[in-house]
Amino acid sequence: MFITIEGVDGSGKTTAIKKVAEKLEKAGYEVLLTREPGGEKISEQIRHLILADQSEGMDPWTEALLYLAARREHLSKVIIPALKANKIVISDRFMDSTSAYQGHGRGLGLEAVDTIQRVVVGDYVPNLTIYFDLDPQEAQRRLKTATKTKNRFDLEKKEFKDLVREGYQKLLQKYPDRFRVVDANQSLDNVEDQISRLIFEALENANHPVSSKTN
Amino acid sequence: MFITIEGVDGSGKTTAIKKVAEKLEKAGYEVLLTREPGGEKISEQIRHLILADQSEGMDPWTEALLYLAARREHLSKVIIPALKANKIVISDRFMDSTSAYQGHGRGLGLEAVDTIQRVVVGDYVPNLTIYFDLDPQEAQRRLKTATKTKNRFDLEKKEFKDLVREGYQKLLQKYPDRFRVVDANQSLDNVEDQISRLIFEALENANHPVSSKTN
Repeated sequence: MFITIEGVDGSGKTTAIKKVAEKLEKAGYEVLLTREPGGEKISEQIRHLILADQSEGMDPWTEALLYLAARREHLSKVIIPALKANKIVISDRFMDSTSAYQGHGRGLGLEAVDTIQRVVVGDYVPNLTIYFDLDPQEAQRRLKTATKTKNRFDLEKKEFKDLVREGYQKLLQKYPDRFRVVDANQSLDNVEDQISRLIFEALENANHPVSSKTN
Repeated sequence: MFITIEGVDGSGKTTAIKKVAEKLEKAGYEVLLTREPGGEKISEQIRHLILADQSEGMDPWTEALLYLAARREHLSKVIIPALKANKIVISDRFMDSTSAYQGHGRGLGLEAVDTIQRVVVGDYVPNLTIYFDLDPQEAQRRLKTATKTKNRFDLEKKEFKDLVREGYQKLLQKYPDRFRVVDANQSLDNVEDQISRLIFEALENANHPVSSKTN
């Protein structure tokens, strides 16, 4: 079971999935919680290159391809081995981030980026993707009070952030079977309850599939 | 006019194109001679990451995507501005290297890599690509006597190098209009004469096109 969490920064996704991972472990599941960009040695080096101040002005396709390179390494060295060991893998961001941020946000074309990603990701498209939907003004407010160091993306203009949200909404429409939406404007407890329910439901369905087809 | 030079290391391409660039300049052309991987600040950083010893065992797709990221930055920051300034751009390696080495050599699929590249390169497919064909045993012999520091690719097995050559041959068949072959087993003077002739011919055709169609 490969689960990915998507949405803008400030949507509370990182905090929420940590708690849900604990719940899953208490229920007896083995869980690997990971994140992008990064999540692996070479991927971290690529991440540093992307976020460096000197990379300001980097061509948008270069940026997208670097994210894809980091993703592929993370996938092959971390995610695939954990899935083969029957762990539940939950990744804080994965392929849809690049489609939304670079494909739609930077104007490369969501379709062009998504097409390339499907070649690179191959059979490892997530089974479930939970999208944390958050009002951009609320995201901005939360970001202002956050203590983390701001990176290039945090400092982007409102227009870019609106495009990213629109990009995610296009992905929801394109992949309705895989995507589930959580309203991240609610309290953290409510959000956590919602994603727990979604994940346990997905596990239930995977353990007792409606059809007898197995892969 | 965008010209690329392809072929295995040891084929003498770097030496030959330097001399040809001098000839072109004497004939009054403005020439930008560049090379991949690298050719630009961010691209050089990516190149270091690919060739680092610690990157041994890197996933082949990661490797291909890093080359593509470096290429896109090189293209947008160096090649496109020079072409817009009406220079002749000659690049020692470009997109076909990734199709031959990673696509065919590493077994990702020449078609998959080539398809992604055409999206990323867009309108900037080379006008002329000169392929230096060299017998693999001769390439090996020349490499042994060369003084340069060997990188990960120099140390690859014969099977890999044979696949790379086969990959180039598939590209020649796929793009007969763009590719010209030079037999690099000949003396350096002969090789240099051949590529000079090919480039001056291409320039002549570009200045006096058969059809009146202009882009």
